[in-house]
Amino acid sequence: MHIAILGGTGDIGEGLALRWASTTSHHLTIGSRDADRATTAATEYEETLSAHGVEASIDAADNSTAAAGADMVVLAVPPYHVSDTVDAVADTLASDAIVLSPAVGMQSDADGMHYHRPGAGSVTAVAAEAAPDSNPVVGAFHSISAHALADLDRDLSADILVVGNDTDAKATVTDLIEVIDGLRAFDAGPLGNATEVESLTPLLINLGRYNDDLQDTGVTFQ
Amino acid sequence: MHIAILGGTGDIGEGLALRWASTTSHHLTIGSRDADRATTAATEYEETLSAHGVEASIDAADNSTAAAGADMVVLAVPPYHVSDTVDAVADTLASDAIVLSPAVGMQSDADGMHYHRPGAGSVTAVAAEAAPDSNPVVGAFHSISAHALADLDRDLSADILVVGNDTDAKATVTDLIEVIDGLRAFDAGPLGNATEVESLTPLLINLGRYNDDLQDTGVTFQ
Repeated sequence: MHIAILGGTGDIGEGLALRWASTTSHHLTIGSRDADRATTAATEYEETLSAHGVEASIDAADNSTAAAGADMVVLAVPPYHVSDTVDAVADTLASDAIVLSPAVGMQSDADGMHYHRPGAGSVTAVAAEAAPDSNPVVGAFHSISAHALADLDRDLSADILVVGNDTDAKATVTDLIEVIDGLRAFDAGPLGNATEVESLTPLLINLGRYNDDLQDTGVTFQ
Repeated sequence: MHIAILGGTGDIGEGLALRWASTTSHHLTIGSRDADRATTAATEYEETLSAHGVEASIDAADNSTAAAGADMVVLAVPPYHVSDTVDAVADTLASDAIVLSPAVGMQSDADGMHYHRPGAGSVTAVAAEAAPDSNPVVGAFHSISAHALADLDRDLSADILVVGNDTDAKATVTDLIEVIDGLRAFDAGPLGNATEVESLTPLLINLGRYNDDLQDTGVTFQ
C-alpha cells in the first residue's frame, strides 16, 4: 500500500517511516508543508536505514502531493495543525483513504504534562471533524515514545491502542502496528473513546520524569 | 501499622483487606457508615481468608470509630462520597494519618467509560481539599481491577501508580503496594498529576469491553 506521512519530518513521522521501511515493502512518501524539507528528511531516513542494512527508497513531496494516491495518510503533525493539514490535502485525498491520527494535545506545568482536551473531545475527533465523511479516521501510536520508535537499535516491547469507528480501517492499522517487531495492537473501541487513549501520552511522559527506569516507557496490557 | 478501610464493604475495600491480611500483620479495620454492615463484611473476609489457609482477625466499626488511631485511612468509597467520608472522620483522624484515595469518577455512554474530571482536577485532589492540612493525601490503586484484587485465587501481575505531594506518605503506600504479590509501584509525581493517573481506569474498562483477552486487565510499564 501507499502511505503518506504528512509532517513526516518530525519525530513520530521519522519513527514510523524507519520502522515501516524496515519491515514492509509499502510505498512510503514523506510529506511536509515545504517539499525541500521533506526531501531532506527522506534522504536522511534512507541513510539511517542503509546504515542498518536496509536499502529502501522513500519518496518526498509537499503534503498535498504526498497525499495524492495514498491509501493512508498519517497526520504526523502537532495537534494544532491537524485540521489545517487535513484541509490542505482534502482535494487530492482518495475518497476511501484512511486518515491516521497519532497526535495528542498537552500542556505542561510544574508537576508534569497534562492532557489538553480539545472541544471535539480528542485530537482524533478533531481529525474526524476535518476529514471528508468518506475517509475513515483512526487514532493510534499514542502510547509509544517517538524517540524509541525512531531508534532502530532499540528493541520495542509495547502495546498500541487503536480507536475509531471504521472496523476495516482499524484492521488495516492493526496490521501496520503488528508488522513492527515488538508491537501489539488492541482495540480501544469507537472514536468517542479516544480521549482516554490520548490521555496515556502525558501519563507516560510523567512516569519518565519521576522514574529513572521508565525513560521513553511504553505500556503493556495483560 | 493500623489501616482503616473506610467504605470497606465494597469491591476495592474487600480486595485490599484480603490482600493485606494475606501478606502482612497490619491491624485492619473495616469501616462503613453502618457498623453492622462493616461487621458482616469483616466476618466474610475472615471466612474467605480462612478458606485460603490464612487465619486473620479483621476489626469492624462505623467509619468514624474505624479511623480513630489509624495510621492510614483508605477512602474505598464512590467518588461522590469522598468529601463526606473525610468530613465524617475528621474529628477522630490522627493529625498525621495518611489518606489514601483509590476512587475514580466516570461516566458511561454507548462507546464506553469516560473519565469524569471533578472541578478540583481529580478525585485525589477532592480528597486533599477535604482532608485537614496536616494529613498527607496519596492516590493509588486506580489501575487494578477491584475484582482481580479480591480474587485470592488470581495471580496478579500489574503496576500501580502512586501520586501525591508527600514523599514519606508515598513511600509508605509504595511499600503497602509492593507487599502484595505481583504488584509494582511507580511514582507518578505530585497531586497535580492525578488526573492522568485516574484516567487509566476508564481506559482499562474499555479495553476489557473490546478485547476478550483483556478482561479485568492491568497495566505494566517497561
